[in-house]
Amino acid sequence: MQPISCGSIICDWGSHMFYNKTSCRVIYGDTDRMGYAYHAHYFRWFEIGRTELLRSFGLSYKAIEEKGIFLPVSEANCKYFIPIRYDDTLIVETGLDNGVKGGFKFNYRLHRESDNQLVAEGYTKHPCVNGEGKVVRPPQFLLDLIAKIKDLG
Amino acid sequence: MQPISCGSIICDWGSHMFYNKTSCRVIYGDTDRMGYAYHAHYFRWFEIGRTELLRSFGLSYKAIEEKGIFLPVSEANCKYFIPIRYDDTLIVETGLDNGVKGGFKFNYRLHRESDNQLVAEGYTKHPCVNGEGKVVRPPQFLLDLIAKIKDLG
Amino acid sequence: MQPISCGSIICDWGSHMFYNKTSCRVIYGDTDRMGYAYHAHYFRWFEIGRTELLRSFGLSYKAIEEKGIFLPVSEANCKYFIPIRYDDTLIVETGLDNGVKGGFKFNYRLHRESDNQLVAEGYTKHPCVNGEGKVVRPPQFLLDLIAKIKDLG
Amino acid sequence: MQPISCGSIICDWGSHMFYNKTSCRVIYGDTDRMGYAYHAHYFRWFEIGRTELLRSFGLSYKAIEEKGIFLPVSEANCKYFIPIRYDDTLIVETGLDNGVKGGFKFNYRLHRESDNQLVAEGYTKHPCVNGEGKVVRPPQFLLDLIAKIKDLG
Repeated sequence: MQPISCGSIICDWGSHMFYNKTSCRVIYGDTDRMGYAYHAHYFRWFEIGRTELLRSFGLSYKAIEEKGIFLPVSEANCKYFIPIRYDDTLIVETGLDNGVKGGFKFNYRLHRESDNQLVAEGYTKHPCVNGEGKVVRPPQFLLDLIAKIKDLG
Repeated sequence: MQPISCGSIICDWGSHMFYNKTSCRVIYGDTDRMGYAYHAHYFRWFEIGRTELLRSFGLSYKAIEEKGIFLPVSEANCKYFIPIRYDDTLIVETGLDNGVKGGFKFNYRLHRESDNQLVAEGYTKHPCVNGEGKVVRPPQFLLDLIAKIKDLG
Repeated sequence: MQPISCGSIICDWGSHMFYNKTSCRVIYGDTDRMGYAYHAHYFRWFEIGRTELLRSFGLSYKAIEEKGIFLPVSEANCKYFIPIRYDDTLIVETGLDNGVKGGFKFNYRLHRESDNQLVAEGYTKHPCVNGEGKVVRPPQFLLDLIAKIKDLG
Repeated sequence: MQPISCGSIICDWGSHMFYNKTSCRVIYGDTDRMGYAYHAHYFRWFEIGRTELLRSFGLSYKAIEEKGIFLPVSEANCKYFIPIRYDDTLIVETGLDNGVKGGFKFNYRLHRESDNQLVAEGYTKHPCVNGEGKVVRPPQFLLDLIAKIKDLG
């Protein structure tokens, strides 16, 4: 767990970013006829990134839902810098943006493993929602998780 | 509503097949780097086919689920004859195989609209399942639907 | 073809927006276990929107590629306002943002057909790229297309 | 590398089956509103299985395509035994059916890692196709690969 270097062009990754690294391989079903990964699939890799970030801090997203809290996506963004091809391995770095209150914002950076080139950057925003679909304040167990992430940063 | 001509190589479409025609266009996100539609996406078109077949007989699949009955897929099969490309329009023909008891079997044929060439054939099988996930006999409203399809054939 | 009303919270839809309306239905394969359409699938609907916008002005995206010009996605964004459910019909409105030079920016708005509620808004950005993957100025046939869209607005 | 136990209900896995094991986790984007993985996504896991099988024998599918040979899917089949849920880990076993001549048939078995229950079984068939899309006999390097798989079984 190390802070991501500053200087991102998307958002202020700031001094309190902590991240998880996960690798994903581009399968044939991810590619399109241009020969590259189809842009919508990057959001699947983002999902894998934030899921593994939460898991690495001891709380799976599945367990969060089992406690009656849901984190639907309220905004998703991705900037694509270089195309990624079939069978390439991606390193998905995911950070929790702790400047956000009342919800979660995850930041993502994808690098190509073979040459460490930056492939894409993006973010997703997530309010806390209860079982009836109402936006709620993050319950204590989530505040504890966020504090834990900060302490380990 | 007319019976499909016999002679299918997949299964006995027989004398009691009734069908629905729906068209779908291949989008970029459906293609893979070979330039053709990725094989797994055909099962999405099959889903569209059976959904529109049910709707054309007055009962949406959504309404079936709202009555507490689910039709999960227990088997899926597709034979691919010619590749289909980006922006091609497919005609999805869907039939209900009424030789099957205790569940549903849908048969599918995909033609390319531009030249009417047969692109693929397949089928899916669906048991009737209740809200607890147990396989049950088709309830009366589904038997009525099947009878209605037969009468109109 | 009518301009979209102003007041979007995403970007200046301005006075020169021209748009295409296309409808899409949410299939089972689009939903996730929350019961709503998975957020990544919205970018497939965006693709359908911009493809049909171009087609409505007489030039399919396929034809553009056949002339050796590609419009890959350099940025994609979506804000999700209300969840959309299985079997809902979406109205996809797509506009060309003509304040952008040297490439294309498409803006999208999704409404639920049943009650006309705004479901989501987003945009995608696309540089013009040639067959070798190099960014190029839009060739004359694309400038003509843009002019045609402006004239009809 | 050990032979799969006999007794499959789909096909004769026989005495000459050799297999690769790969694990995949079910992500949110794989699920549908029934709460289970959508049936079409299993074919993505099958793709991962056969790709890793080939790679484990020293030849990536990407390298096969770079030699001008393509293995498109001519038939795909899956039988679904128990539903698989969000965040479950699947073990994908893939075998090469060496009773098939003139092409490839891969057999797949998916188990749930947590309790080793059989989730699904299936197969895909693949002719050898050259760059012009014509079916050809498997070239020597593929025959060598098949022989290598047999020898190691």
